[in-house]
Formats: sequence, C-alpha cells, structure tokens
Amino acid sequence: MIRDLPKGNAVIGQSGGPTAVINQSLVGVVEGLQTGLCHQGIVDRILGMRHAVRGLTQDDLVDLTDVPGDRLERIAQSPSAALGSTRDKPDAVYCQRIAEACARHNITYFFYIGGNDSSDACRIVYEHAKAHGHDLRCFHVPKTVDNDLECNDHTPGFASAARFVATAFRADALDNAALPGIKINIVMGRHAGFLTAASALARQSDDDGPHLIYLPEVPFDEDRFVDDVQQMVTKHGRCQIAVSEGIQDASGVSIGAKLIGGEKDDHGNVQLSGSGALGDQLAELLKKRLPKIDGKPPRVRSDTFGYLQRCWPDASRVDQNEARDCGRFAAKLAADGYTNGSVAVVRTSRTGEPYASECTRVELTDVAAKTRHMPERFIEGHNNVSRAFIEYCRPLVGELPVVDRF
Amino acid sequence: MIRDLPKGNAVIGQSGGPTAVINQSLVGVVEGLQTGLCHQGIVDRILGMRHAVRGLTQDDLVDLTDVPGDRLERIAQSPSAALGSTRDKPDAVYCQRIAEACARHNITYFFYIGGNDSSDACRIVYEHAKAHGHDLRCFHVPKTVDNDLECNDHTPGFASAARFVATAFRADALDNAALPGIKINIVMGRHAGFLTAASALARQSDDDGPHLIYLPEVPFDEDRFVDDVQQMVTKHGRCQIAVSEGIQDASGVSIGAKLIGGEKDDHGNVQLSGSGALGDQLAELLKKRLPKIDGKPPRVRSDTFGYLQRCWPDASRVDQNEARDCGRFAAKLAADGYTNGSVAVVRTSRTGEPYASECTRVELTDVAAKTRHMPERFIEGHNNVSRAFIEYCRPLVGELPVVDRF
Repeated sequence: MIRDLPKGNAVIGQSGGPTAVINQSLVGVVEGLQTGLCHQGIVDRILGMRHAVRGLTQDDLVDLTDVPGDRLERIAQSPSAALGSTRDKPDAVYCQRIAEACARHNITYFFYIGGNDSSDACRIVYEHAKAHGHDLRCFHVPKTVDNDLECNDHTPGFASAARFVATAFRADALDNAALPGIKINIVMGRHAGFLTAASALARQSDDDGPHLIYLPEVPFDEDRFVDDVQQMVTKHGRCQIAVSEGIQDASGVSIGAKLIGGEKDDHGNVQLSGSGALGDQLAELLKKRLPKIDGKPPRVRSDTFGYLQRCWPDASRVDQNEARDCGRFAAKLAADGYTNGSVAVVRTSRTGEPYASECTRVELTDVAAKTRHMPERFIEGHNNVSRAFIEYCRPLVGELPVVDRF
Repeated sequence: MIRDLPKGNAVIGQSGGPTAVINQSLVGVVEGLQTGLCHQGIVDRILGMRHAVRGLTQDDLVDLTDVPGDRLERIAQSPSAALGSTRDKPDAVYCQRIAEACARHNITYFFYIGGNDSSDACRIVYEHAKAHGHDLRCFHVPKTVDNDLECNDHTPGFASAARFVATAFRADALDNAALPGIKINIVMGRHAGFLTAASALARQSDDDGPHLIYLPEVPFDEDRFVDDVQQMVTKHGRCQIAVSEGIQDASGVSIGAKLIGGEKDDHGNVQLSGSGALGDQLAELLKKRLPKIDGKPPRVRSDTFGYLQRCWPDASRVDQNEARDCGRFAAKLAADGYTNGSVAVVRTSRTGEPYASECTRVELTDVAAKTRHMPERFIEGHNNVSRAFIEYCRPLVGELPVVDRF
C-alpha cells in the first residue's frame, strides 16, 4: 500500500475561530507525520500555513519539520492558533491559487484543522484537486468551541471552553449571591447551545445558578423570558441567567444579529461575539418590564464572556489529549493510504462507566458545512438542560473548583 | 491592658464589591479572634453580618464561633463575599439602628472588610457609637480590586484581579494575532488605573499586546485614540487595547458613565460594570474613523471583562496570604487595646529584593472615603505604563502561563 503514497511535502493549516487546544491538534499532526510518513521517507518537509489557505496562496509558510520537541510542547500548551487563522472561504479561483501553491511547494498532503466551514474548505480543495487530476490528499481535523460538528460525540475545543463557562458561572453565582440582583451572562454559540448548556455544570446545589438557560434550539420569547426571571427572583431573591449569543425568535431570526447590526464573514456568518449589545438589551428589557423595588428598577447586570471562552489557558485535560490524538490520527489516515477524510471523536464508554473515547474516520461530505444542534434529550423545558446533558458533559470538563458560602 | 477590653461579642461584615480573597480576610479575623480575644475570654461569640450592616440591623447574623476549620478553609478559598455584601451607606438614622443592633447582640467589636466607602462606613459607625458613649471598637480590613486605598502599597483583592486581567490579555493577544484586527478590552477601575495597568504584565516580548493602555488618570481624547490605534495597526498589523472603564475626558467627565446612562448607588458611584456599552462605542468610533480595508471597515471587536475580574477562582498566592494576614492583624489590633483603626499593607522589600510585606495600623480617617490614583512614575506617556509599575505589580500577581506561537 505504501508504494501508492505520493511522495512530497505535507502542509498544515488552522482555520476559523481559535480554541484552547487547536495547537494540540497541530502538534499531533506534526508528531504523527514525524513518526509516520516522514520516517518512511514519503513526506520530506512538514510546512505550516500562516493564516491557513491565505498564507498558503501567498507562500507564507513555516517549516515545522525540525522544530524541537520542547518548543512543540510549549506550542501545544498555548491557546489560540499558533500558525494564525483565517475566515477565508476558497471559491474556484481561490482553489486554483491553492493548487498552484501546492504544486510550487510539492505538497501532496493537506491537513486542515477547523470547524464545519473549514471542513467544507478542505472538501472543496480536495475535490478541486481531484477534478484537475492532482493526487492531493486532504484531511480535516475537527475543532470548534461550538461543538456543532456532525458525526462527533463532541469536538476538540468544546470541553475547554465549557470548562471556562462552567467555572465562570460558578464564581459569578457567588458574586450574584453576595450582591443579589439579576445577572445575565452571554455565552458563545452561533447555532448550537452546547456551550451555553455547559453553564449548568456550575451548580453545586439546587438553588445555585444558573437559574435559567436559554439555547438557540428553543425559540426565545421576550414575554416568557420576563416571566421566568420574575419567578426566579421571587423564589431565590436573585437570578443568574445563561443566554446563548445565538438565541432566535420563533421565526428563526437571530436576536443578537438584529441588535449588533450585521457584519458578515465570507461564510455568511453574522458577527455575534465582540459586542455586549445582546446582554445590554436584555438587561434594559428586564429593567423596563420587571416590577420596581422602592421605586427603582431592579439591579440587572450583564456580562458577555467574549473571546476569553475560546482562549483561556486552563484547558480541560481530556480536551488536550483528544485534540492531540485527532491530529495524530489524521496523519495515520494519510499513512494508511486514505486520500481524504475527516477525523471524528467517538465516545466508547457508556453513562456511568469511566470516560473513554477514540478517533474514527468519517467522510468529509458528512461533516462539511453541516451543523449539529443540541438533541432534544439534552434540553429540559424551555429554559434548562437535562440530566442526560450533565452526564454527557461532566467527564469532558474535568474537576471544577469547589466553593462555599454562609 | 486586657482589663480595659470590653467583654462582649464580635461582629464581622463584608461590604462593597466582592473579590477573590475577601473570604480570606473574613477567615483571618475569625482565626485571629479565636486564638486571641475568644481564647482570653473577652469575646464570647463571633457573629457574621449577612449583607453587612443591612443584615446587622435586621438581626440577620451567622454564628461563626465554632465553624469547623475545614469549612473555614473552604470558605477562605472561595471567591466572593461568603456572608453577602451590600452597598448601603449608613447615615445618622441607619447608625442609630446599627447601635441598637449592637446593643441587642451585646456587640463590642465591629470588623468591617471593604474598600474606601466601607472604611468610611466603619468610621461613621465608630464615631456615632463614641458620640453616644458606647465603647464599640471598630476596625476596617482593606479590600478592593481597584487598589485605590490610601496608606496601602496595594490592597487585598487587587493582585488576584490583576492576575485575571494579565492572564486574559496574554491569551487574548494570541487570539488577536491569529485573526488580526483591533481588539478593545474594557477593564474594571472606577477612578484608579491600577487594574487596567496590570494588563501590561501580559507582554512576553516587545510586539506582544496590549499595544495601548488607557487609564483614568490620563485624559482620554478620541482623536488621539484613533491616531494611536492607526499607528499600532501600521506597525504590528493588529492592535490589542486595554481601556479602563473609568476613562475620563479632559474636563473629568466619565466617558463610560455618559454612555451607560447613569444608575447610581448610595455612595454616588455611577454604574460602570455590567454593561458592554463603553467597549461597543469605542469599537464603533474606530470602525467609522479608521481607513477602510478593501472597502470595508477594519475588524474591530470589544470585550468587557466584567465581574469575572473580581471573582475568578485562581487567586494570587501572595494576595491570599496577605488578605488572611490583614484579617488576623485586625483581630490583633483589638486584642492590643486599640479602639479603632484600619489595617494597611506595606511593602518591606525594595525593588530587586525578594518580595515581602507586612500589616500596619493606620487611622480610619486617613483611609475613609479617599481615593488613591496611579502615581505619575507608574505612567508612561498617554497610553502606556512604566517599568516601575511592572516591577511593582509583577511579584503580587505570581507566575503566568508561558505561551508561544509561530
């Protein structure tokens, strides 16, 4: 089989929003190639694209073949995309420039670490090369804090972001209990509510926040929201609320996008992060609609957790290991003679058993440009998550600080 | 001397915005009393006020005398105010109710952990009791993430918040380098720029962010801001910016307060946190005023770090120890026969020597309701901090994660 492998160089890119463990995957691919195709004399140089396909087309490449192990390990432990990233989506002309760059640099293996838009870019590059008779082997390595890739139990990057969100809610709930009021925290997640749902891991006991959780999968209704909050304030004397940046009204219109105003990337995604507008507007709504206390509106605050969710340098151990494994597995797929594919993380343990997972190969077309949502069994009512979700999520995130108050 | 000490109960309150280590101070006072005045038979019960003076006047007290050591330690390690907090400021009528509550509960020692407003509340309570012939001994224990108490080298709570801010900037700078653009991060600090200045600790090398730092101590000018950002974008291809929520224009008007709209607490403080408005407005300003790129405004994002700065559960070790020591020292002041006072943290090491500090007693009137600002020697130009500030701040914050990129 090895005789069928095209000799040449390998190139690796990191695309889309960075995560706390995308560099683990980068280093995983490098290690997998070093001990595999490089060792076998099939791959000569391992090249990194600066800012993904944008750098590739501009010959902006970094030679990763001989980076010392201790530097690789420091890179693996660092959040964000060490090579730089892009949101460029290759069209036919762009693909032609990619193909020319691959020819210039004698590239026969193309590894692309990213989310659903990036897996689609990987598919486009592969199909373009194939249609033009080039044996360019293309592999997608999964990455996204949104956890919205099909075929995956969960996606590298999600667990670390979930760890940040759960830790933040646990700490912020104490702040909210100390100076009681209504606190809205806006969580990343354009279409899928997994990351917002992870806020539920913050709860140590029944009256702990988050008291309300709003996901993009459940239509958001302003009147019902105001009623929910009032009920919780009556019950607990305070209310901590998790709101996904991706909440939509019953007709599927994004509430955040309406408020923030409509900057779009090449994939057609409207900007949701990097603005506090959604939280501020929901806070204003509550101040206006809830009963006054001593003649004044209730105390309502909002925080938008923002980019710290995807770069906070306290990654989940499980996430670090799985992200690394996904990179190594992609290199193995190439060594095994596959011409293309996407790596997926599959859970091999059942509920109650010690957590275990493995990597598997899935078709690029099964992942590319598709979005997975929270399944119904993970959602409870219109403002909470289920026990099944907690059991799904807890082993990924690791131990959280145990906190207490009088 | 001990025969002069009034027998009775002690009461402890936590007031103002919580921090990651205010519970260390609470536990420090409890420990100091247990081994001191309780042991000597002077103090009978150690009582905690729920939500500070508000709880005291409502007889909402927690008996802390016999809380087991392991629970106390868990409380000490927990962020936020375990007893609850308030922003109430006692006036004459309120003081009368406090005096009556102290009489009802046979309280002769009053400990109040908080910032400059809280030290003023402690002073008011002391002076009211004295004027009415009550021997109520009142001690203030310092706390504030703003680091703006007079007589202190720095204030318990600051170092942990600074640790969060520096870690956040270091991680976010990698995100900003991966997907280059302009990134504004809004940092707490109503009047003093110390916490915003701590962002400078994030830098590992010369081209690392934050590239610009705006403090309340330096008048903020929109035109100059736009020019500064353009220069950094030209130089680095990106720009990460630290902005204090407390920035003011040349006439001393708070820019955030103008934008957020003016909710005030009892101390006259305008709400600045719990809204993304300042960051969003500055982002809009840059999008409008900076040159377009390919016909589009530059990529500008803003995050407002919000309440996580004061509650993130990864406190600085130095901060934890000093906060605990301040609590113990306050109990010692009472045992030593002082009738009142505020605890201050003094640095005993010089620049270059291993860091060391100690607690000292200062007059309540020297701290109460006063605000310390960044001294000029800590400020460099109109958009940076000095090496002297870095040397001042670094030992307080502890080791930060070392990160790398290609």
